[in-house]
Amino acid sequence: MESMASIKPFNITYSIDPLAFEPKEEVILRSLSTMKEAFIDQTAAEAALARGEDPRIVEVYMAPVPHGEGFLMANINVVYPGKVGMEYFMTKGHIHDDPDHAPEIYITVKGTGKLLMQNLAGEYSVLDMAEGLINYIPAPYAHRCINTGSQPLVYLGVFPADTERDYSFDSKNFKKLVVERDGQAALVDNPLAK
Amino acid sequence: MESMASIKPFNITYSIDPLAFEPKEEVILRSLSTMKEAFIDQTAAEAALARGEDPRIVEVYMAPVPHGEGFLMANINVVYPGKVGMEYFMTKGHIHDDPDHAPEIYITVKGTGKLLMQNLAGEYSVLDMAEGLINYIPAPYAHRCINTGSQPLVYLGVFPADTERDYSFDSKNFKKLVVERDGQAALVDNPLAK
Repeated sequence: MESMASIKPFNITYSIDPLAFEPKEEVILRSLSTMKEAFIDQTAAEAALARGEDPRIVEVYMAPVPHGEGFLMANINVVYPGKVGMEYFMTKGHIHDDPDHAPEIYITVKGTGKLLMQNLAGEYSVLDMAEGLINYIPAPYAHRCINTGSQPLVYLGVFPADTERDYSFDSKNFKKLVVERDGQAALVDNPLAK
Repeated sequence: MESMASIKPFNITYSIDPLAFEPKEEVILRSLSTMKEAFIDQTAAEAALARGEDPRIVEVYMAPVPHGEGFLMANINVVYPGKVGMEYFMTKGHIHDDPDHAPEIYITVKGTGKLLMQNLAGEYSVLDMAEGLINYIPAPYAHRCINTGSQPLVYLGVFPADTERDYSFDSKNFKKLVVERDGQAALVDNPLAK
């Protein structure tokens, strides 16, 4: 196992406008074509792709930290503004593999959104994301971030670096969806929920 | 041991101007009289106290999270602007009790400063603190935050919640001091360093 003594102190720098982050060890980029199954309106998703539209939806930039026990990971996450049908752009959502030891803390640095969470007992929770808010996600809660605003939603996530993300908790598990209704973000039942 | 399932998702809210944070489980308040030994210029510290001045230097607001294994703690920290002699207001500095499993991540939300770190081998490091910077502190590094600006330095700290702070790493251990010299922040040798 890599020892904590093996890394030196370092800064992560971020710029909001234009969006830029350094250093980044690993980058996750998701566009509509790579995560279309996450959205409820498959007709709208397919229609957009048929028109040649494949918008960038999510970017994740990871800090250069070993993925080992005893380290903290720091991710910069971006969810771009937009919708698929009436559903806002969002992250796929996932749950951590260790329900007793892998909480996560989000700090929003730009934009506005909703943090949708649900534990394995089916209890759900929705928190606002905005500058001035820090979200505490206990380990047993799956979590998904939804950009309900008109600018990129940018947030830092801190979690134990040996955490694995389990994406099998997906759009068929979340009981709720966040959609635009009458120009407002609304929490509605997910018709696909098991 | 308290289970992770025992807490629900929650938001921490912070306001920068005026400074305000909710919720807060535990608050640490330090004024000059309670931390004067941390400063190199004891004559200046005693003179200020003799004049009836006892300025607030540090505030720490802790999130309402159990101090148990598997939780992450989120602290909002404030270091006010000011000096004792030529030395800027700062935190006492401490090292975490578990050098392999207790790193910390700082995110500055207001102000400017320096993060002084030193490991048990005597290697030191200085990082800037400012909006747009996230500091990664590996576990074996003692750390102290110095406000080199003219407004409060406010930063969020995230670390494993079962971490104990060891304040026996103190001003006699840090090899360097951050002082004002010619109107600028300067890193100088600490004459008290063992």
